Amino acid sequence: MRTTTSSVNRKAILIYSGGMDSTTLLYSLISEGYLVKALGVDYGQRHLKELDSARTVCEAQGIEFQIANLSSIRALFGQNALTNTSVEVPEEAYDAENMKVTVVPNRNMLMLAVAISWAIGSEFRTVAYAAHAGDRAVYPDCRNEFVEALGRAAELCDFKPIEILSPFIRMSKAEIVSIGSKLRVPFHLTWSCYKGEALHCGTCGTCHQRAEAFLISGVPDHTHYATPPKIEQHRRL
Amino acid sequence: MRTTTSSVNRKAILIYSGGMDSTTLLYSLISEGYLVKALGVDYGQRHLKELDSARTVCEAQGIEFQIANLSSIRALFGQNALTNTSVEVPEEAYDAENMKVTVVPNRNMLMLAVAISWAIGSEFRTVAYAAHAGDRAVYPDCRNEFVEALGRAAELCDFKPIEILSPFIRMSKAEIVSIGSKLRVPFHLTWSCYKGEALHCGTCGTCHQRAEAFLISGVPDHTHYATPPKIEQHRRL
Repeated sequence: MRTTTSSVNRKAILIYSGGMDSTTLLYSLISEGYLVKALGVDYGQRHLKELDSARTVCEAQGIEFQIANLSSIRALFGQNALTNTSVEVPEEAYDAENMKVTVVPNRNMLMLAVAISWAIGSEFRTVAYAAHAGDRAVYPDCRNEFVEALGRAAELCDFKPIEILSPFIRMSKAEIVSIGSKLRVPFHLTWSCYKGEALHCGTCGTCHQRAEAFLISGVPDHTHYATPPKIEQHRRL
Repeated sequence: MRTTTSSVNRKAILIYSGGMDSTTLLYSLISEGYLVKALGVDYGQRHLKELDSARTVCEAQGIEFQIANLSSIRALFGQNALTNTSVEVPEEAYDAENMKVTVVPNRNMLMLAVAISWAIGSEFRTVAYAAHAGDRAVYPDCRNEFVEALGRAAELCDFKPIEILSPFIRMSKAEIVSIGSKLRVPFHLTWSCYKGEALHCGTCGTCHQRAEAFLISGVPDHTHYATPPKIEQHRRL
């Protein structure tokens, strides 16, 4: 992550899901002196409770948090496990084939577009988001080449350029956990599980990815899982 | 506009406002054999009645029409004449300085993002939209360089590329009217006026642009204006 001593007047809209990665990015931005406004997006996800985590963290940090309600467009997305409860969330390994059913079409462009609108409307020039290399295989719109292309469009979409800041784009989730640990990110408040039930289920692909990232980074995992993830049975990220 | 004899299986999502340009594009696509689904976007515009025009034309043509409701994010856009009724719609000349207050931040990226989501969800590979050169000076996101950059992102946002079709990007509005006239576009059903009242006001910048396009193209203007536009007083587009 870029560091600077002259960032007092920097302002950023953060796309904020309430998960580990974007919470770490929030703490990174705050530590660098950014004024941050956080954007949650309701796109009809079954794990909408992730935005409760986002709100809790923002309130504790004194960060403005707004939710963009895009839930009415869910019908346009077709069949996927995140916005259709009739499609099951994949269990166990977080790999491309297993997780493909969780792809929400063009989700990141949608979220970036709303964030850019808010940035321009706020006279901010930066949008930050926490895509990382661990999602590269599963989600095309988490890849650095997509982010770079969208970043070029963001430079041209207004009278002055908007900058897309995606410092984790070449990092693993475990590396992000290491950074977050140093920044004292309250990981216990963050939400990952795609099932969106009372506790993290511990069995879905996203819970496995979460648990593996803690294991690999050596950071203690204080998540309350309904079923303890069996990480040793799966390929580590 | 590209023509082809082998477009039987082509399918496109059209971003459809109900105005002259996107209605002409709808007719162009139909004439080329495309299966079209049309997307209207409610972003909180005061001239939401434009989408009534869109629906009327789609129903007459047997085209599926869906409205994406993004109105809840209006609060993020800041001050502009289209989503804040406290900001007046500019009168008379359609030039960059006069019309700048009508810029809705990043509107086209938002609309393209939703259209791309729907395309992927529908297993379509093409999104069409009717940005044209007459809007170049006023709206950064109607410029060909923006469309090209966004098109590159669209190629990368999914497992297979999405193509952005914007055949009017280097045409004037008068050229579009000429094309539409040949295609028998029902221009009397289309809506342009940003004020969104009972009739086209005839005095706002957008009504002037509409009337000028008819005048320059030599196509009769059957619009019912509340006040006849005084085109001769203004620079022609």
